[in-house]
Amino acid sequence: MNDSTLAKSNAFAGGAAYVRDRYVPMAEAAIPVSDWGFTRSDVVYDVVHVHKGAFYRLNDHMERFTRAMERRRLRPAEDRAAIETILHRCVALSELSEVYVAMACLRGRPSVFGSRRPVDCENYLIAYAIPWIDVVPKDVQARGAHLWIGTTPRVPDASVDPTIKNYQWNDLTSGLIEAHDNEFDTVVLCDRDGYVTEGPGFNIFVVKDGRVMTPDRGSLHGITRLAILDICAESGIEATIQPIPRSALEDADEVFITSTAGGVMPISRVGKRILGNDRPGPVFAALRDAYWRSHDDERYRTPVRPLERTA
Amino acid sequence: MNDSTLAKSNAFAGGAAYVRDRYVPMAEAAIPVSDWGFTRSDVVYDVVHVHKGAFYRLNDHMERFTRAMERRRLRPAEDRAAIETILHRCVALSELSEVYVAMACLRGRPSVFGSRRPVDCENYLIAYAIPWIDVVPKDVQARGAHLWIGTTPRVPDASVDPTIKNYQWNDLTSGLIEAHDNEFDTVVLCDRDGYVTEGPGFNIFVVKDGRVMTPDRGSLHGITRLAILDICAESGIEATIQPIPRSALEDADEVFITSTAGGVMPISRVGKRILGNDRPGPVFAALRDAYWRSHDDERYRTPVRPLERTA
Repeated sequence: MNDSTLAKSNAFAGGAAYVRDRYVPMAEAAIPVSDWGFTRSDVVYDVVHVHKGAFYRLNDHMERFTRAMERRRLRPAEDRAAIETILHRCVALSELSEVYVAMACLRGRPSVFGSRRPVDCENYLIAYAIPWIDVVPKDVQARGAHLWIGTTPRVPDASVDPTIKNYQWNDLTSGLIEAHDNEFDTVVLCDRDGYVTEGPGFNIFVVKDGRVMTPDRGSLHGITRLAILDICAESGIEATIQPIPRSALEDADEVFITSTAGGVMPISRVGKRILGNDRPGPVFAALRDAYWRSHDDERYRTPVRPLERTA
Repeated sequence: MNDSTLAKSNAFAGGAAYVRDRYVPMAEAAIPVSDWGFTRSDVVYDVVHVHKGAFYRLNDHMERFTRAMERRRLRPAEDRAAIETILHRCVALSELSEVYVAMACLRGRPSVFGSRRPVDCENYLIAYAIPWIDVVPKDVQARGAHLWIGTTPRVPDASVDPTIKNYQWNDLTSGLIEAHDNEFDTVVLCDRDGYVTEGPGFNIFVVKDGRVMTPDRGSLHGITRLAILDICAESGIEATIQPIPRSALEDADEVFITSTAGGVMPISRVGKRILGNDRPGPVFAALRDAYWRSHDDERYRTPVRPLERTA
């Protein structure tokens, strides 16, 4: 990395991106319209966040991203250590303190003209650091989000593995549009058998009689989900990964959702059912607080490297 | 459109693209890495081809693309007439005679920072004209392609409507990788119930006892598929859209596939089964010839407009 990048670091204030060996301001980060990462959605990704100057559970995100690339046979030029350095540099260039940090590996395009073979493509990494985003706005979080149960069934795990983080959101987008049409904030989908899965960008948890449950199917193994399960284990709260029929969601004492983009967020209504007193519940509040406290836990913190240490 | 575009038309020789109101050489056509058309695969598309100076069945492609945009509530700035003019201009700029012409409408990005609502996004059109591509290489077509039956089930129609042409190819890509691992040329997927659907970028037809059949589920309503059905109707060949169990595919007299990118292409092997004499069959050959003859039919031809009539 040369000094000219450092000299113009203000250009990265809106976000900094890495695309094919170059650091560029977010507004310039682009991919070709004929890239299979776009035209076949042949891409895996991950999102980690930076809070108070440190990545949270970076190791867990890198493990998941590395596994996803392997499972889809995506092999970028950069190894894991190089990818981590790129994430640090994007954050440092952006000069942001609360940061949404994304990485993706795209299939690319075939080097042989007309080839339809994934193996003929040169895979490549992109990454970017942009200002923090909550999947549920703060004012909605204050009252608890209203959750619609979508009529579109989640794509089955056998067709598209939801544990390999992907951009194929059509079923989730269909549900989201339906939720908004019905004046709900967001949506969760059930699978074809009527079991609860996940929503657009988040996992879901159900609380019943002091027990915490999250779906065993149709869902990403979210890192915030993992954080909640760890916190429950350390706090003596019973928590299980299990099948959750739609009726259990509707009969819950509390419901909350988890996402890197927002953390732990409350649901106060599920369809026409009002949970508790139509406000965020006590189990949610305790877990949310514990989740944010865990950001100070040295086990999970990776301080962002200063710019000069990311060259 | 100004004269400077005309002056540098050689720059478009590798392909011409239209992105957000600008014509650019194909190598410069790009979309932002944070566009929901990429990060949510929230995009519909269509592909039409130009053969001997004319679009083939352009009206059918435009009807399908328009319907797809409506179904996904995608509203670009350009109306249908404007989109057609853009396609003509991309082809004219490229100066290509056999052309693969793509159009896509992307969700775009929310104009409200942090919004997660599709309705907050400014949708936009991209289009491009590039050299013709066959989904099956010519040398493979000469002997007949070897077709693998994938073990990944096709995404159900209820989750992602396959008649809305989309880029969500993960199930097809999984099948394609499996086919190549087994030294087959391409793949077809069955649904969870064991019925044949489609392959990566093509429809499939089965011939048995002189009857022609194509699947009624899990499939795009392909324009080449429609052309074959029309040719059968006009030629007195019995053709039906119907459920096709995997066993009917394996027991076929002939199998062929259809795609805008390649037309009508023969299959000579299905898994370990060798069809006929391990070469393209007679029903296939007759239909392929009729398909290419139909390109001269005035009902289906839309001559490409000269550059000065696309301003």
